[in-house]
Amino acid sequence: MEIFYINGSFTHKNDTYISVEDRGFNFSDGIYEVISFKDETLMNVKKHFSRLERSLSELKIIKPFKNLKSIELILKRLIKLNKLKKGFVYLQITRGTSLRNHEFPRKTVPNAVFFLFPQKNNDKLMNNGVKVMLSEDLRWKRCDIKSISLLPNILEKQKAKKLNYYEVWQTKKNFITEGSTSNAFIVDSKSRIFTHPKNNNILGGVTRECIIEIAKMNNLSIIEKPFSVIDIKKCKEAFLSSTTVGILPVVKVDNILINNGEIGKITRKLTDLYKNFLEDQI
Amino acid sequence: MEIFYINGSFTHKNDTYISVEDRGFNFSDGIYEVISFKDETLMNVKKHFSRLERSLSELKIIKPFKNLKSIELILKRLIKLNKLKKGFVYLQITRGTSLRNHEFPRKTVPNAVFFLFPQKNNDKLMNNGVKVMLSEDLRWKRCDIKSISLLPNILEKQKAKKLNYYEVWQTKKNFITEGSTSNAFIVDSKSRIFTHPKNNNILGGVTRECIIEIAKMNNLSIIEKPFSVIDIKKCKEAFLSSTTVGILPVVKVDNILINNGEIGKITRKLTDLYKNFLEDQI
Repeated sequence: MEIFYINGSFTHKNDTYISVEDRGFNFSDGIYEVISFKDETLMNVKKHFSRLERSLSELKIIKPFKNLKSIELILKRLIKLNKLKKGFVYLQITRGTSLRNHEFPRKTVPNAVFFLFPQKNNDKLMNNGVKVMLSEDLRWKRCDIKSISLLPNILEKQKAKKLNYYEVWQTKKNFITEGSTSNAFIVDSKSRIFTHPKNNNILGGVTRECIIEIAKMNNLSIIEKPFSVIDIKKCKEAFLSSTTVGILPVVKVDNILINNGEIGKITRKLTDLYKNFLEDQI
Repeated sequence: MEIFYINGSFTHKNDTYISVEDRGFNFSDGIYEVISFKDETLMNVKKHFSRLERSLSELKIIKPFKNLKSIELILKRLIKLNKLKKGFVYLQITRGTSLRNHEFPRKTVPNAVFFLFPQKNNDKLMNNGVKVMLSEDLRWKRCDIKSISLLPNILEKQKAKKLNYYEVWQTKKNFITEGSTSNAFIVDSKSRIFTHPKNNNILGGVTRECIIEIAKMNNLSIIEKPFSVIDIKKCKEAFLSSTTVGILPVVKVDNILINNGEIGKITRKLTDLYKNFLEDQI
């Protein structure tokens, strides 16, 4: 993962720099995506690219590429150059470099930086499940944009780590919005899966979208409706999802033990189905 | 303004770069300050430095300097090298460069970047007053930290510009918190000055602090209490403050004309007092 991409060039990571007047650096004026890959195949690529386009459009950042096919070619070249069989591509696009001024500059070319990172070994987390803690959602009102304005997210993730939790599930008036780096799901006593609906309060993860599709295809009941702390207390199963971890079972939320600390049947079923769903793309 | 400072070196702006793995660039994991100067004197420097220290401490970023005196020496050197008589220093400090991962890296050295920008000519705005528009406060719940997580702020400022307003005054449940780049004040019919109290909903500007001190020293009644849109409709005067503009009269808020579009007496008085307050520091 030593070769990075920046604005048309492939360079060694130690030679990959950005101007200190980049608006991403000064204002977090930019967006990002993380896409998993295996053997040069980008997973769920259409969904990621359509979200990327939406994020750029919401921030009125000009698309720095003619079409998405050209990004795909760059990403495949990047994977090849780095000789990585499996992992993730990270894409960051900012409004560009300009004299520091809040207002959008008239003439600026976006800066695009792509690099790879490897897959962590999540076997232990997959087998044992993870603990999450609840914490008030501190974020702004446009969480639907996948922006690099991630300060609340890193503070929450760090808090979880410090207190020996895997993740924070953020709450708004006693309802769970989503995790700091993942989406949140529970399964109630009637085997219905609940997750927060897609609106300005959550990001709307690509893996979340896939889970909804897979559940529907397999006649599992999935309802996009916010669930509360009380619902967690009564639930049968819980899990979280993200591009980097896929589906992870949640066995404890604060001090609420889920399913006696065991991974639930529906979580297991969805994990298998999602694995196949990805394999089918290769 | 061609010479920048970065991590111990003074370099030409075109040679001042930051790693694309800087956490400020990837996560907006950093803080900033803007300090005005004249003839190498930094204005309100103690207040700016104490806020800088607070911002770093809130984000648990290690201070990249032994003491604040050493930053002051760097800034004075930067001003001298750039041969600028009057303007602003911009200071940005991020958690540092590290493999992209939400959790704080164990060993990282903060990145510090300082550069200058000139004073704009604000005479027209000072003489005529400015128009501001109202808009829902979209920001997160820790606006008290002067972080570079400024995406909501730039979106609001850009919206104002596009609609031909100077600034947005952000509202929370019909009460004004502050502007996207400034603090907000009104003067009621009893000549009492109102501004939002310092808490997590506002930044707590240095100029705002000075105005409160100056008002108290000059027996003007100043009350730190949120004011509403209804209060604006009944007010006698309005103004805004920031380090870069000082005090600017506000003559219109949305379609509410203030004081028949004329600059009010108290606004004029405070503007003169603040000017003297700065002059006295030289």
